[in-house]
Amino acid sequence: MSPARRGARRPTEPAEPEVSPLTINRLSIYLRALTHLHDQGIQRISSQDLARRYRLSATLIRKDLAQFGEFGIRGVGYDVQRLADRISGLLGLQRTHAIVICGVGNLGSALARYWGFNHGCFRVVAGIDADPQKVGRKLGSFTVAHPKELKRLVRETGAEIGVLTVPGSAAQENYDALIAAGIRAVINFAPSRLEPRSGVRVKNVDLRINLEEVAFFLGD
Amino acid sequence: MSPARRGARRPTEPAEPEVSPLTINRLSIYLRALTHLHDQGIQRISSQDLARRYRLSATLIRKDLAQFGEFGIRGVGYDVQRLADRISGLLGLQRTHAIVICGVGNLGSALARYWGFNHGCFRVVAGIDADPQKVGRKLGSFTVAHPKELKRLVRETGAEIGVLTVPGSAAQENYDALIAAGIRAVINFAPSRLEPRSGVRVKNVDLRINLEEVAFFLGD
Repeated sequence: MSPARRGARRPTEPAEPEVSPLTINRLSIYLRALTHLHDQGIQRISSQDLARRYRLSATLIRKDLAQFGEFGIRGVGYDVQRLADRISGLLGLQRTHAIVICGVGNLGSALARYWGFNHGCFRVVAGIDADPQKVGRKLGSFTVAHPKELKRLVRETGAEIGVLTVPGSAAQENYDALIAAGIRAVINFAPSRLEPRSGVRVKNVDLRINLEEVAFFLGD
Repeated sequence: MSPARRGARRPTEPAEPEVSPLTINRLSIYLRALTHLHDQGIQRISSQDLARRYRLSATLIRKDLAQFGEFGIRGVGYDVQRLADRISGLLGLQRTHAIVICGVGNLGSALARYWGFNHGCFRVVAGIDADPQKVGRKLGSFTVAHPKELKRLVRETGAEIGVLTVPGSAAQENYDALIAAGIRAVINFAPSRLEPRSGVRVKNVDLRINLEEVAFFLGD
């Protein structure tokens, strides 16, 4: 258990230090690197070597992992498989998480079939759209449903994560509907700030950050 | 100019310390926070306050900004507008960057019209697809073209950034075509590792990381 994983469920206790999303994202990056090393048959790695190979910071790696009680052995490093399993456990990837897509336009349709949303512990199990022309359409492993079916779908599938791929103007309304249906975390691709509701985590995704990263290297 | 922005252009000089993509991504996050503060009429902010409001690390903020010669004044903090302008300059957002989308299926079509890819200094100016049914289709501000038009389109539009939204099996071939056409940076949404070519930056985007971030908080 992380030091403060459950912080999000107790919004009335702001004093509790919560793990930063940036730290969690780095755990994901370490996990990908460790999986890649494991596939190459590498069993042990030092923080320096991990940093060098994947252009990361050795200091941050040590600090991040120490926060969860993981310390490399001096001169030996980390056990690749063991650390991968540990991070996987920290990230909650040891059990299945079902996903419902809210808005199946181009982006929603792409995500419903996206490999990273449909392997390992993640699975898109339902999609809803208010457009009558989309309702009933087959998408991935399910049929697009009307929003009035949302509550039933969440209950029947046990979906915990909602993905918002509706226009910005419809984001808040659909976010509220997801929460009313029992969804516990929302990933928002719509370009609008949501008024968050207590106890439900929102991750706003801004794909533009990838453009800014490469623009940095393009020079003046 | 950043300490090592041009590192990517000199792959034969690996000793040059290059700025980490994670640092650059944090600059983007700081810029969004500063823009948000500016919109609220806030003119000065300390690293502690910035960290508290946006759930960041004050130590990292100071360290990241000091790397580019930006130091807050003790007891006063950073000038919001000045720092936003400075980060914007560092990220290369002071001039236009044209984008070509390679593969206009659901994801490519969504990105061609995505707000974050079409405001400020970024603009999607062309899209190509080998599917004859897609060639000639109007998408955003352009008409989908055949891959044989790629070189001409890049030359005429001055596009620097290529976005790969083709199936994994077609990613390397299309990546090579983008580079042959003169594209200088590639954002890869395809789920396959690319064999990088000298001097061209590749940013692999893995949208699954967003699921892992929220899964962390969902508990066991």
